[in-house]
Amino acid sequence: MSAETAPDPTIIDDTTALAARLQTVLDGRWSAARDLVRAQIQQQALLPRTGLGLEEYRDRVLAQMKDMVELGFPASGFRPEHGGTGDVGGAVTAIETLGYGDLSLMVKAGVQWGLFGGAIENLGTRRHHDAYVRRLIDLDVLGCFAMTETGHGSNVQWLETTATYLPETEEFEIHSPTPSSRKDYIGGAAEHARYAAVFAQLITAGPDEEATGRGVHCLVVPIRDAAGDDLPGVTTSDCGYKGGLPGVDNGRIMFDHVRIPRENLLNRYADVDADGTYSSPIESDNRRFFTMLGTLIRGRVTVGASAGAAGRFGLALAVNYALVRRQFQAPGGDGELLLLDYRTHQRRLLPLVARAYAFALAQNEVTAELHDLQTADPDDVDPEAVRVLETKAAAIKAGHTALAQRAISEAREACGGAGYLSENLLPLLRGDIDVFTTFEGDNLVLTQLVAKEQLTSYADDVRGLDAVGWVKFVADTARSVALEKTAARQVVQTLLDGSDEDPENSALTHPGTQLRLLRNREDHLTRTAAARMGRARDDDADPLEVFTDTQDHLIKVGAAHIDRIVLESFVDAIGRVDDPETRSLLKQVRNLFVYSLLEQDLAWFLMHRHVSVERAKAIRRGVNELCADLRPHAQTLVDAFGVPEVCLDVPMMDQ
Amino acid sequence: MSAETAPDPTIIDDTTALAARLQTVLDGRWSAARDLVRAQIQQQALLPRTGLGLEEYRDRVLAQMKDMVELGFPASGFRPEHGGTGDVGGAVTAIETLGYGDLSLMVKAGVQWGLFGGAIENLGTRRHHDAYVRRLIDLDVLGCFAMTETGHGSNVQWLETTATYLPETEEFEIHSPTPSSRKDYIGGAAEHARYAAVFAQLITAGPDEEATGRGVHCLVVPIRDAAGDDLPGVTTSDCGYKGGLPGVDNGRIMFDHVRIPRENLLNRYADVDADGTYSSPIESDNRRFFTMLGTLIRGRVTVGASAGAAGRFGLALAVNYALVRRQFQAPGGDGELLLLDYRTHQRRLLPLVARAYAFALAQNEVTAELHDLQTADPDDVDPEAVRVLETKAAAIKAGHTALAQRAISEAREACGGAGYLSENLLPLLRGDIDVFTTFEGDNLVLTQLVAKEQLTSYADDVRGLDAVGWVKFVADTARSVALEKTAARQVVQTLLDGSDEDPENSALTHPGTQLRLLRNREDHLTRTAAARMGRARDDDADPLEVFTDTQDHLIKVGAAHIDRIVLESFVDAIGRVDDPETRSLLKQVRNLFVYSLLEQDLAWFLMHRHVSVERAKAIRRGVNELCADLRPHAQTLVDAFGVPEVCLDVPMMDQ
Repeated sequence: MSAETAPDPTIIDDTTALAARLQTVLDGRWSAARDLVRAQIQQQALLPRTGLGLEEYRDRVLAQMKDMVELGFPASGFRPEHGGTGDVGGAVTAIETLGYGDLSLMVKAGVQWGLFGGAIENLGTRRHHDAYVRRLIDLDVLGCFAMTETGHGSNVQWLETTATYLPETEEFEIHSPTPSSRKDYIGGAAEHARYAAVFAQLITAGPDEEATGRGVHCLVVPIRDAAGDDLPGVTTSDCGYKGGLPGVDNGRIMFDHVRIPRENLLNRYADVDADGTYSSPIESDNRRFFTMLGTLIRGRVTVGASAGAAGRFGLALAVNYALVRRQFQAPGGDGELLLLDYRTHQRRLLPLVARAYAFALAQNEVTAELHDLQTADPDDVDPEAVRVLETKAAAIKAGHTALAQRAISEAREACGGAGYLSENLLPLLRGDIDVFTTFEGDNLVLTQLVAKEQLTSYADDVRGLDAVGWVKFVADTARSVALEKTAARQVVQTLLDGSDEDPENSALTHPGTQLRLLRNREDHLTRTAAARMGRARDDDADPLEVFTDTQDHLIKVGAAHIDRIVLESFVDAIGRVDDPETRSLLKQVRNLFVYSLLEQDLAWFLMHRHVSVERAKAIRRGVNELCADLRPHAQTLVDAFGVPEVCLDVPMMDQ
Repeated sequence: MSAETAPDPTIIDDTTALAARLQTVLDGRWSAARDLVRAQIQQQALLPRTGLGLEEYRDRVLAQMKDMVELGFPASGFRPEHGGTGDVGGAVTAIETLGYGDLSLMVKAGVQWGLFGGAIENLGTRRHHDAYVRRLIDLDVLGCFAMTETGHGSNVQWLETTATYLPETEEFEIHSPTPSSRKDYIGGAAEHARYAAVFAQLITAGPDEEATGRGVHCLVVPIRDAAGDDLPGVTTSDCGYKGGLPGVDNGRIMFDHVRIPRENLLNRYADVDADGTYSSPIESDNRRFFTMLGTLIRGRVTVGASAGAAGRFGLALAVNYALVRRQFQAPGGDGELLLLDYRTHQRRLLPLVARAYAFALAQNEVTAELHDLQTADPDDVDPEAVRVLETKAAAIKAGHTALAQRAISEAREACGGAGYLSENLLPLLRGDIDVFTTFEGDNLVLTQLVAKEQLTSYADDVRGLDAVGWVKFVADTARSVALEKTAARQVVQTLLDGSDEDPENSALTHPGTQLRLLRNREDHLTRTAAARMGRARDDDADPLEVFTDTQDHLIKVGAAHIDRIVLESFVDAIGRVDDPETRSLLKQVRNLFVYSLLEQDLAWFLMHRHVSVERAKAIRRGVNELCADLRPHAQTLVDAFGVPEVCLDVPMMDQ
């Protein structure tokens, strides 16, 4: 594009070295964890397979997990005082990197050490840590995370499973009262898990109290004996084949008045005394529930990160193929053109590569923030910071998994018939990644959550409100809503200050202009959404109708927020790169990310007069020009992902 | 929307009856063929399965095909004088309807009766018809269609397999000279096919001639003996697992100097005498090649049609689920809202339902035109009409398969975790449909083909030109390009005459306005594309650079053309509906189709001032309003697809 950002081709005399420097940027703080897992993938060829039966695949993945214990990262997810080694970022990054291998392994590892282990670590207390943490790290205890039910996935507060306290025997009785209360899709429940972290409506009465529902809590429930048979009262079943992830034994659990000791309640945030008295340091049921959920954020971070790795894997396959595969006659020559020499092919893949860079860097930031929060002294942690990170994790999870799904689909299609053969891995990645947009929070629900937090500026006690309550809240505060941004980063502020307030007067390749365009869009959408909600107060309007009528607006608020924070991360990361060549190339990648993002939502920018028609045309042209400019760097850009060689050595590359 | 188009709710007292009337419209001329296949699917539960090994699945599908012979539609694809019953439309529609069942069966049936049978029927002469047609109908001869090679899929003129004529023995020698000349992805080649219709470069010399390449021709080559073993010189292998379609035995074939009798050349368009003299009624190699390809159009029509059926199947699953599944509290009630009561969910599914209607009707038209052409006396058929239909078939194939893939992906995601379980069929549909965008013509290549035909007004001898030759052709004629439309339909002309020339002054719900907007977009894009190509002549510009720089423009021309012809079909079809209720509902569906289509490309309409900012906002609002208006009809709309009950009776519907 501009002379300022285009690297001088004479400088780049060694693309391998440049790829290595780029990889250093992408790998970030936990590059050692990445390399550890890369080596394991390479040595053991930890790749998705086809043609194995479910049982064989599941056993294979469990065996691979056992090999990982010795690598040390399973332990690093837990605090030293609980039996771990306390390197949360390393643990998340290691599991992320499994996205370059077999996602079945990634998910099964994530369930055991991240979800089940995370529930024990974060919701439990000393007695649980002592009893389980070391053993679950070593896989002597296999567990599952039994939250979702057949009837309720996104609306977790409405789970139906009950945990009723019985003071006579000092036990809880776990029960599935209806068919829709069946625990469903639970990874590990079909076969391997001996224990389940069960989320259930807690019911208890203190002396002289009525039995009272206390909301959803988590309890450790043994579900299988040593022989692998269901314990009395427990009925597990198998979800069978899925769209992918054949190595994960997803299953269902029904409880028929199953008794467990009182001590099995994970009691960090609430406890039940022997006599049935309920106590909690957090008064509000609602706030307690969201506090508990908040501690489980790591799963969401990990899922977004791993999806990102899988997306990069898919893009690396498609770009490598496009650099060996020829089709249709090249002009003035006997041979044929490489696929990547076609503009349509560049447009198909390179904007996704650029977006993959942007999200990878934003994801690294989330991982680091999570690490810093979860390795700090719990007493020093600001609950507000947790909540801001939760929203950010939701945003990046939604954006990153959606990107991965799109990237892999596009990669599959860009490889034509070859891309459809399992031997070339893309269909397996496609099947495996598909559910990432759904689990650990449906992307649409998460995007709304992000929008709601923007609209209410993280106001207390907004969470848990139903649609009506929520619209009313916004309506009541709409007049005073001033979009409260999380404190702007220094680098962002400087760039904004250095660009014209009217983006139309400032070069579109200037990061200040780019930031301003995305901030202005988010502001505009947030303000107008609030105004529309406000109508719920003004007229006799039915608040539900108002909510329904503004729901797609709300989704746009969330999506705009996601784009904006990702760009800020990207700009921030580029600012920390010293090497001029690397920085220069990253700026071009950032430009393509922004241009293609603007192009995708160009109608909105035009309709709301945030860009002129002339500028809109320049954006469209710019995407083409940036694709042409980055074409010579395509190999370097995907090499920098550091996908292990064994993963890219598929038959279709022999041309 | 407007009072004119909204049906009076009191009129619709019987939604089942309305669904039946809608179904009559959708089913069209070959409803009997549809019902025949529907009954077969229902009785035999012809649904995609999971957990079967490849061999078991393939045998299962072959057995299902044998059951179909007696239904009669396999015979209907062939002319009575060749041994068939001569109902092309019935044959295509029957295979289309298999898209409501197992796509493995649809594809395997399509390969045998459509592709292999079609090559024999259309490229062969009496001797081939006598030898094969009846036997291939009855499955006594199993064949495959060996066109694609490892090195060449889209660029068929560059196939490398050779068929060299040997006058000494009056034989052809079929040979695979390079690894990239291997026949690849060939349905049936892995296991079941005994014969292959092989596309190869024909090389022959008449007496006193040099051996000369005559371009690609098709020959019947036996590849397996009765025991199923490869014949001498033939080496087949198995493509193994794919993204889906496990019941189709895709394989590879290498030929090592395999001899076949001279008579095995399918010699309708070219022949080789005993002495090696080559003759053809068509002088130009290029034109002959495209004439031969043109006769194979039925495969492309069938693939588009079946994909459409599969897309409707997926949408019916997702809409039915959204009408039983509840999530999050309904305002002022104890229960939860149905998924389809959410605006985001409506927006996700209903515009796709509307698009499915539009494409289903356009597809019916293509099938009918194909039928009329292929059942006419060959001497009466205008080659120009064949070419126009070819382009239309390419357009609808690209549009319909893309829609199906998107619809099924969206449907899967809209069903959350349940949508990821194989027992609910969506992941199987997802895996099976994936390759439809690639085979029978890659969608991107087809969309460019459509655009090129628009730009050159179907000029002779343009096909087969390389990128440079093609740009030069357009450049030379660009000044005189007047977008030549296929003669406008009467109904379209009347509607255009009845609407204001400036679409901004005419109601957006008026079909004349809608047609005008889509025609104007196509005109505009075609003219500007031609002008950009024209630059190749004006300056010293490198024509390849011109081509590359305009390639995404070209794709837009093709896409705009597809949308326009689909709308015209839709409008035409509605014009033929007598029942006012049915017509009124179809108009609303058409409005949602057009509004969502405009919304999707709104940036273009704004940038080129085809709609104002105000109208753009009205379009966005309109999509929401139309979703709300159609919400009460959602069940009726998908019931009218007539997907067999057994297909929709999946576990997730038990809520």
